Amino acid sequence: MKHGGDILTYQNLYKGRIVDFSSNINPLGPPEGLREAIIERFNTLIAYPDIKYRRLRESIAEYLGCRADEVIVGNGAVEIINNFSMMFNRVVVFIPCFAEYIERPKILGKEILKLKLDNEFKINLNMLTQNLRAGDLLILGNPNNPTGLRIDIETLQKIQGMVNDKGAFLLLDEAFFEFCYSDYDSIRLFYNSLNVCVIRAATKFFGIPGIRLGYAWTNSSMVQKYCYLSLPWSVNSFAEIAGRYIFKDREYINKTKEYIQLQREYMAEELKRIENIKVFDTHANFILIKLLTYDEDYIFDSLIKRGMLIRKASSFEGLDKSYIRVAIKDYDSNKMLIEGLKECLEWRA
Amino acid sequence: MKHGGDILTYQNLYKGRIVDFSSNINPLGPPEGLREAIIERFNTLIAYPDIKYRRLRESIAEYLGCRADEVIVGNGAVEIINNFSMMFNRVVVFIPCFAEYIERPKILGKEILKLKLDNEFKINLNMLTQNLRAGDLLILGNPNNPTGLRIDIETLQKIQGMVNDKGAFLLLDEAFFEFCYSDYDSIRLFYNSLNVCVIRAATKFFGIPGIRLGYAWTNSSMVQKYCYLSLPWSVNSFAEIAGRYIFKDREYINKTKEYIQLQREYMAEELKRIENIKVFDTHANFILIKLLTYDEDYIFDSLIKRGMLIRKASSFEGLDKSYIRVAIKDYDSNKMLIEGLKECLEWRA
Repeated sequence: MKHGGDILTYQNLYKGRIVDFSSNINPLGPPEGLREAIIERFNTLIAYPDIKYRRLRESIAEYLGCRADEVIVGNGAVEIINNFSMMFNRVVVFIPCFAEYIERPKILGKEILKLKLDNEFKINLNMLTQNLRAGDLLILGNPNNPTGLRIDIETLQKIQGMVNDKGAFLLLDEAFFEFCYSDYDSIRLFYNSLNVCVIRAATKFFGIPGIRLGYAWTNSSMVQKYCYLSLPWSVNSFAEIAGRYIFKDREYINKTKEYIQLQREYMAEELKRIENIKVFDTHANFILIKLLTYDEDYIFDSLIKRGMLIRKASSFEGLDKSYIRVAIKDYDSNKMLIEGLKECLEWRA
Repeated sequence: MKHGGDILTYQNLYKGRIVDFSSNINPLGPPEGLREAIIERFNTLIAYPDIKYRRLRESIAEYLGCRADEVIVGNGAVEIINNFSMMFNRVVVFIPCFAEYIERPKILGKEILKLKLDNEFKINLNMLTQNLRAGDLLILGNPNNPTGLRIDIETLQKIQGMVNDKGAFLLLDEAFFEFCYSDYDSIRLFYNSLNVCVIRAATKFFGIPGIRLGYAWTNSSMVQKYCYLSLPWSVNSFAEIAGRYIFKDREYINKTKEYIQLQREYMAEELKRIENIKVFDTHANFILIKLLTYDEDYIFDSLIKRGMLIRKASSFEGLDKSYIRVAIKDYDSNKMLIEGLKECLEWRA
């Protein structure tokens, strides 16, 4: 299981509605009004999407606070990761990380250097400086998946300086950015840098993973190189419509941020009370858990029987079968998970 | 202009609604009921598409008369062309052809051998047999774009035999299949072959280019290789919904076939009466025209001023500025084009 969200595969193990803790989607659902916006503009379907995505890129630029010619759009963040991997000979990652940082370059026949995060899942700067070379693409999740950790601002600035000095390129995957409490915005931080690209995604935060819309900020000359490589019309017309609607809904954005913040605190607190697990700190809308007594298969099987799908984390290179990852969802679902985990883990003879 | 359909770029040249003859979409619009099907299943958006596209592939398999494990789905036919290009070291094409047969392998760093179609835009079998090597991917449009010609069944069988003998692979791009009058079905013809893939597309025939759904039939072991390479969730949830709806609408399919057949005859007859052009025969829903006196720029500019966007064909390698390509649309639009062309071409002092 390289990715979460594959409910269909497990539907035979539980008759009712399975609550999906394996993919990290906004529990509040899509913004109100999106449905109507799409129905209204249904006729857009009978033409190709604008091959240059002009209006969509303008909406995103406004949201990000940059120029439209600095915006890339893609079929989810993963297409952007794929196309950046095409542009470089070697990809450098810190494991554990999102599987596609390794998979896409591998499929494209690129060399991959996998460095290890330290015991607290932090980046070892010495290790990075010893290994990073000119022409490398360094891909970092911020927050990282599956750990949920944002890189602190000082470390990130040092990393970018190192990337700059070496003549490498930094691809920051911030697909979960809006879910996080954050004291800095990478786009503002690196706005004048020529060796940084920051990926964001509409998929998760706006609760529309089915619509497939990733986007990124980078310098305009990199955007041009990217557009040369990318598949024509890779973003569909629905994503184009949605993209021109969702970013304006400030109320929805703020409400979700607050909701996730509250649920993150609730989940962390309650999970830490459960015996036989170690709960890692997170800035994101998912939590990595180390199982101290059981393995991921036991917990997965126990929870699917109770109608909950979690993510086994051994599929992340660098983790073993003693880890699971769970999404932060709505209060009722979160409570259900906490109780389910208690039942599995605190069994007493 | 590598692709048609880019109306936005030319909107400043004509104030009213531009009729788009540059992209080849079903003039009858999408099947009735698709709108409702999508509205009904709007909630699908709040989950990821099934990463294995099980139900969608079953619907397509039923439509094509094959097994679901023989079906590939993609973000338009162009993603399938891209991913097949990844699997082979050299790509062989006959020019003029759809630009992406050359672009995608080029971007992927593959060797490309461009052979020329003969003066009647037919494939020279001797030339093919002299040049085709083991491990090559031969990509042929059937019907070919921009010529509109289907390969006759005897020639196609010889080509497939040659591909087989040499240990190459044949990728038949039949994105316009349903628009054509056809005396054979390539999938039936090559159903037991291990070295053929047939691409089809929902985009054009079902009038929904904004929805991005291409698909293909090939043998199941090739499907597995393909799935390993392809981006996760490259087909969005709307395409998934539409794909499970459109193929069942036999009435719409037959109605469109008949309509296009009638309009193809009408257009061919009327265009052939116009002076100073040569009109090529076509099996498809578009027509290639050779300009005997003016060039593509003059005709393009003259027609855009009249609210009609056509395709300059010099962007197809192997053609020069004396060619244009026009779509076959609804009767009123077709008549408008015929009259527009007459005005441009038959000017008398």
